[in-house]
Amino acid sequence: MTRPPPAGSVVLLSGGMDSATCLALAAKRGAPVYALTVGYGQRHVRELRSARALARRYRVADHAVLQLPIGPLLESALTRRSRPLPHSGVRAGTIPSTYVPARNTILLSLALGYAESRGADRIYLGANAIDYSGYPDCRPEYLRAFQSLARLATKAGVEGELRFRVEAPLLRKSKAEIVRLGERLGVPWALTWSCYEGGARPCERCDSCRLRAKGFAEAGIVDPMVRRSAARRR
Amino acid sequence: MTRPPPAGSVVLLSGGMDSATCLALAAKRGAPVYALTVGYGQRHVRELRSARALARRYRVADHAVLQLPIGPLLESALTRRSRPLPHSGVRAGTIPSTYVPARNTILLSLALGYAESRGADRIYLGANAIDYSGYPDCRPEYLRAFQSLARLATKAGVEGELRFRVEAPLLRKSKAEIVRLGERLGVPWALTWSCYEGGARPCERCDSCRLRAKGFAEAGIVDPMVRRSAARRR
Repeated sequence: MTRPPPAGSVVLLSGGMDSATCLALAAKRGAPVYALTVGYGQRHVRELRSARALARRYRVADHAVLQLPIGPLLESALTRRSRPLPHSGVRAGTIPSTYVPARNTILLSLALGYAESRGADRIYLGANAIDYSGYPDCRPEYLRAFQSLARLATKAGVEGELRFRVEAPLLRKSKAEIVRLGERLGVPWALTWSCYEGGARPCERCDSCRLRAKGFAEAGIVDPMVRRSAARRR
Repeated sequence: MTRPPPAGSVVLLSGGMDSATCLALAAKRGAPVYALTVGYGQRHVRELRSARALARRYRVADHAVLQLPIGPLLESALTRRSRPLPHSGVRAGTIPSTYVPARNTILLSLALGYAESRGADRIYLGANAIDYSGYPDCRPEYLRAFQSLARLATKAGVEGELRFRVEAPLLRKSKAEIVRLGERLGVPWALTWSCYEGGARPCERCDSCRLRAKGFAEAGIVDPMVRRSAARRR
């Protein structure tokens, strides 16, 4: 008896190190991978370039890039340029000011439509422990609820053709653990982008750059992005 | 003791007669109304004009119009011009070919983000009995699941600041019942648009036009749109 080939996977690919690691995990499944990159009017336009490079590197079956002009719709530090970016460090137990209303629900619902259209049954989301501690839409109970909703919401779900699963393989991992996992999988870190500022090179001051640097340092691995930008500065 | 004023309402406003009736119901609440119109690459560009006219007529606090280029992402008769439109009538017990993958989940998640940003706790969706019989994402169990998800997904939901409700007041109504309700509320039918074809005037042949005509006929009310287009043809 031969088992049927696995259905495809949709990866929400921002271009950051977490979604790149998810892409590497999805690629390992051996099923077609569909990458979905959503630019939602935020500052990280630079991330889109990284997402394209990663999608090419992993030879995805399709890479959908969707520009979603929801900045004026949703109030947040990430989508409104007038509000300052946080540089004060991440505090536990509070919802960070980088919270974007219903962000993951919007992303997951687009991924769900894309998955059903392509016959994919997995949706990979790069949410991790740092997000999990702060954002309501990164918690396991939220992700389970979305997965149940996905099965109720769709023709393929209701008819039992696709049994949708939301995969958040990094949810309980620290940045250092993600760096170690990505390193084992051969993730091309030099193609990824984390900085909130979105300049020509990482600012190395924003929370996102600091979390990335801490992760690489704790994992004992040199971040090629920082090495490259340090070399450029000389 | 005075009760606090009701929080605002978000109305998903397509420009059709169902969403126009929802808009009239939301306006009656006396709380600020925020209209959200999403053009998702489908044929009814004409509907957008109707949505704008309705939003103006009801003096909404804000009308967000979002162009969502998800046509290539989602396969459907409504989003792909190469597939013929259904003219064969709606059959019970089957999911119609006009089904768009995850459509309502995408629309509701955008409405949720908008609602949280504006401090609105109700989301009005014009799904009705005809949809309910065919589309998985119009069923009461789906709508209840989305409402639970909304409370888990958001800062305002988790912190108990807003208790989100999905309002689908037309869910169990026939088109004739919607016409009668809208008539009582004074819905300006001449501003609404139902035709799938999206021409200068209703085609009066597509399923949507036929359902509309049947609804008005059963309610014993003359549809000003048809009267106007009949007059024009003379």
